[in-house]
Amino acid sequence: MASSNTRERILQTSLALFNAHGLPSVSTHRIAAEMGISTGNLHYHFKTKRLIVEWLFRRFDDRLATIDEAGGGVRAIDDLWLALHLRFEAINEYRFVYRDMAHLESEYPETAAKSRTLMARNLLNARALCEKLAALGVINATADEAEMLALQIVFTTTCWLSFERLVTQNAASTRPSDTGLAAYYTLTLLTPYVDPQSRAYLDYLRSKYVQ
Amino acid sequence: MASSNTRERILQTSLALFNAHGLPSVSTHRIAAEMGISTGNLHYHFKTKRLIVEWLFRRFDDRLATIDEAGGGVRAIDDLWLALHLRFEAINEYRFVYRDMAHLESEYPETAAKSRTLMARNLLNARALCEKLAALGVINATADEAEMLALQIVFTTTCWLSFERLVTQNAASTRPSDTGLAAYYTLTLLTPYVDPQSRAYLDYLRSKYVQ
Repeated sequence: MASSNTRERILQTSLALFNAHGLPSVSTHRIAAEMGISTGNLHYHFKTKRLIVEWLFRRFDDRLATIDEAGGGVRAIDDLWLALHLRFEAINEYRFVYRDMAHLESEYPETAAKSRTLMARNLLNARALCEKLAALGVINATADEAEMLALQIVFTTTCWLSFERLVTQNAASTRPSDTGLAAYYTLTLLTPYVDPQSRAYLDYLRSKYVQ
Repeated sequence: MASSNTRERILQTSLALFNAHGLPSVSTHRIAAEMGISTGNLHYHFKTKRLIVEWLFRRFDDRLATIDEAGGGVRAIDDLWLALHLRFEAINEYRFVYRDMAHLESEYPETAAKSRTLMARNLLNARALCEKLAALGVINATADEAEMLALQIVFTTTCWLSFERLVTQNAASTRPSDTGLAAYYTLTLLTPYVDPQSRAYLDYLRSKYVQ
């Protein structure tokens, strides 16, 4: 019991430190020091930093898979807003993954390979979603346009939070990302294609999120 | 003369190593070793890695400023394609800057602050560009839509090359990025708004870049 608690605390502390300081800057020594345990105790639970990174990535991946399943029920623009919002919450909670991807690629090739598999799944899901919205008449888009939209949506959900920090944040700021605004921004990609009813909903979100 | 050559070689070698292995992974020892000079000789030219990073960022910034000036002459969709292509060439040549931005933020706050200034300038320029294209009738967009497009264009030019690697690259691949494809992808954001003549040009690019 105490042991599984320690294991969980290591994962939570690692996640917080990776998110705050970046994956390259955080060693297992630092994680142990932050928790007030010995490095030996930490290594008893996770032999290497790599194992911690793998566990955290698996959780992130599982979390997105759950959101994907729920996303199968999206039939209107407000369903999509909610699904995007939940997705950005997950990406924000595990934000080191997409933000430090270049480092993952060079130092954690197995996790990087899994993240490419995840990205391929994201693209397939987004394409299916855009095709469904087109079939339902929520968006008015050709097959080519729906495919382009799917790519834009995956690109935006993957990179927006990193970009947003770049544009708005002071180096010292720890203001949390506004995942509702991120979801709204992603929806604006659909603006030229939506039906009048959905456009009214987008206008409502605009009045809520954009000053 | 020999001295200024060494200085230039240090900058070029650093740029290549930062691009290939990531800013966090490359020390001044590694740069000196790669060049076959002593660390002392390197430090004679650049006291710290921070100074090298600052010099490289300034060059990147100057390069984009030159492209911005030329961008003042954009009056049609093919001018824009060329301007975007040149911009992606520059971003690709200094790709560590945007890719390793999270690390810049935590370890090189002065350079990160300059990159935020650069981003603000990019947004202003993109907004002026979209307003001009709307005024010329190249795109048919309201003021709100033009502003949204400007944000989408800056987001895409900033993050696309990192995303593209994530989607398409094998860990071991060193295939160079296709900056023409990146420019085409950015142009597709304008698709819903362009006049028929520009749409024909986009269709031409599509046939050239998308299989």
